[in-house]
Amino acid sequence: MGVVGSFALAISGALVGMQKKLDPFGVIIVAFVTAVGGGTLRDVLIEQRDVFWIADPSYIYFILAGAICAMIFQNKLDRFRTSLLLFDTIGLALFSVAGVQIGLTYDLPYIICIILGVITGSFGGVSRDILVNEIPVVFQKEIYATISIVGAVFYIVLHHLEINRLITELLPISTIFILRTWVVYKEITLPSIYKNDETVDEEDW
Amino acid sequence: MGVVGSFALAISGALVGMQKKLDPFGVIIVAFVTAVGGGTLRDVLIEQRDVFWIADPSYIYFILAGAICAMIFQNKLDRFRTSLLLFDTIGLALFSVAGVQIGLTYDLPYIICIILGVITGSFGGVSRDILVNEIPVVFQKEIYATISIVGAVFYIVLHHLEINRLITELLPISTIFILRTWVVYKEITLPSIYKNDETVDEEDW
Amino acid sequence: MGVVGSFALAISGALVGMQKKLDPFGVIIVAFVTAVGGGTLRDVLIEQRDVFWIADPSYIYFILAGAICAMIFQNKLDRFRTSLLLFDTIGLALFSVAGVQIGLTYDLPYIICIILGVITGSFGGVSRDILVNEIPVVFQKEIYATISIVGAVFYIVLHHLEINRLITELLPISTIFILRTWVVYKEITLPSIYKNDETVDEEDW
Repeated sequence: MGVVGSFALAISGALVGMQKKLDPFGVIIVAFVTAVGGGTLRDVLIEQRDVFWIADPSYIYFILAGAICAMIFQNKLDRFRTSLLLFDTIGLALFSVAGVQIGLTYDLPYIICIILGVITGSFGGVSRDILVNEIPVVFQKEIYATISIVGAVFYIVLHHLEINRLITELLPISTIFILRTWVVYKEITLPSIYKNDETVDEEDW
Repeated sequence: MGVVGSFALAISGALVGMQKKLDPFGVIIVAFVTAVGGGTLRDVLIEQRDVFWIADPSYIYFILAGAICAMIFQNKLDRFRTSLLLFDTIGLALFSVAGVQIGLTYDLPYIICIILGVITGSFGGVSRDILVNEIPVVFQKEIYATISIVGAVFYIVLHHLEINRLITELLPISTIFILRTWVVYKEITLPSIYKNDETVDEEDW
Repeated sequence: MGVVGSFALAISGALVGMQKKLDPFGVIIVAFVTAVGGGTLRDVLIEQRDVFWIADPSYIYFILAGAICAMIFQNKLDRFRTSLLLFDTIGLALFSVAGVQIGLTYDLPYIICIILGVITGSFGGVSRDILVNEIPVVFQKEIYATISIVGAVFYIVLHHLEINRLITELLPISTIFILRTWVVYKEITLPSIYKNDETVDEEDW
């Protein structure tokens, strides 16, 4: 699960790097930071835990593979916004659930597990956007983090009910994936809390 | 002390989030990052120490309360710059002192304790500003960090003199609070080190 | 080696801070973050290791000295771009090698050591640029990270051959230094991976 998530996030990072016309190593670095950012912050916060890609360097090869694939197939990934959304969402879904799972492994309170899920799922994308100097996508109107929280809570409920492990993983992952795709497709936003709501200008990507 | 500081910084984070017209969850995330940023960096740097909000999740509820209060009472907090200054300064004062205190608990050298005080007091605000893509307020001309250092040194002196604990805490906290308010009110800046000193244009907030 | 690197990076940070017309404490903070950023991230990632400037506070005095020198001698350092390049490159060379070395000390796999070298060498500069809200220099066309990787690999090869320790350190350091200076001087860039390659406008510094 973590490996597939890293691969997907590496592609999403590479896409943003190429959009910004970085050189190949710049693209690989953005891909790496995007793929490991969330999990690394989680592992640093849980001080008993080693950082996952130092404990298991095979992640690094999957990330490299993802970045290189993105560079080779950039023609096929031409519709930038759609491709970015796809891989970013796969990463969000897999890593949110992985984060909650690891929190539960360490017997942390549910509220902490949910926060770890959100951090694992979204901090990679946040670092990517900070690195290339954009306002993080997580704060655009795409209710990114909200969906990650929904998935995390759903996972905890299923886990509590002691349902079959595969289902406990797959249902929240699919929920996050479907919810985000649907939300972006329908351009749904959370109810506004502002009175005169001039919409912020959309970024051009 | 930490709890009040978290509450105040959560409000300051929520104010900035609302200023940027983020959705409610975006506002909560900025509030959370602002409130825990400084203390989390401190706890990660002191590797023997668990991250405070993971060790004691009750902080999270106070942060949520702060963010929600800010959203509910946004009309009353209408004078944005004044409210932001107030809550940011409360947070700076309480967290700078908390940072020094924790450094002393671990018997670290004074210079490290002072740096931990500055980090605890100001890194939350710095993260907030990086997240919303502003030049951090700490680098505006408000001698933010300088005041934090003054408070930290003052705390160490009082601590060294083994004065009553309440006084040792309250005096530096009030000093930081009064100094910063006074400095902003008088628009005092540190003596310039540049020859032809064209003032940098003020941000519009 | 670490001490000289910190001193050089502190100067590079102070130069950027002064370029942005920060007040003296702002300059010192940027200098500090630039000088410790890379090594701190490395030490936080290697969870067995204490953060170097907390374990040995003498670094802090060298960093202060670097920042103060930069402020005093700002007239002599007037040719901003050249001075920044010089001190940034010294820091990159010394810290990249220091990062690899420490990775090897902890018996980490080579790929991890190389990444730790790149992180130690370049994360200080990245933090500096994020703090002052620039797109990190590492992503400009100066193949910064690529050179750090070349130096790291070179160090590992020499280390593997069990050559004299001084040579094992000096050769990769000089390689990084010469390569980067030459690359910037010749304005060499990595081969482009984009088809119609409109050059991104150069930053004005």
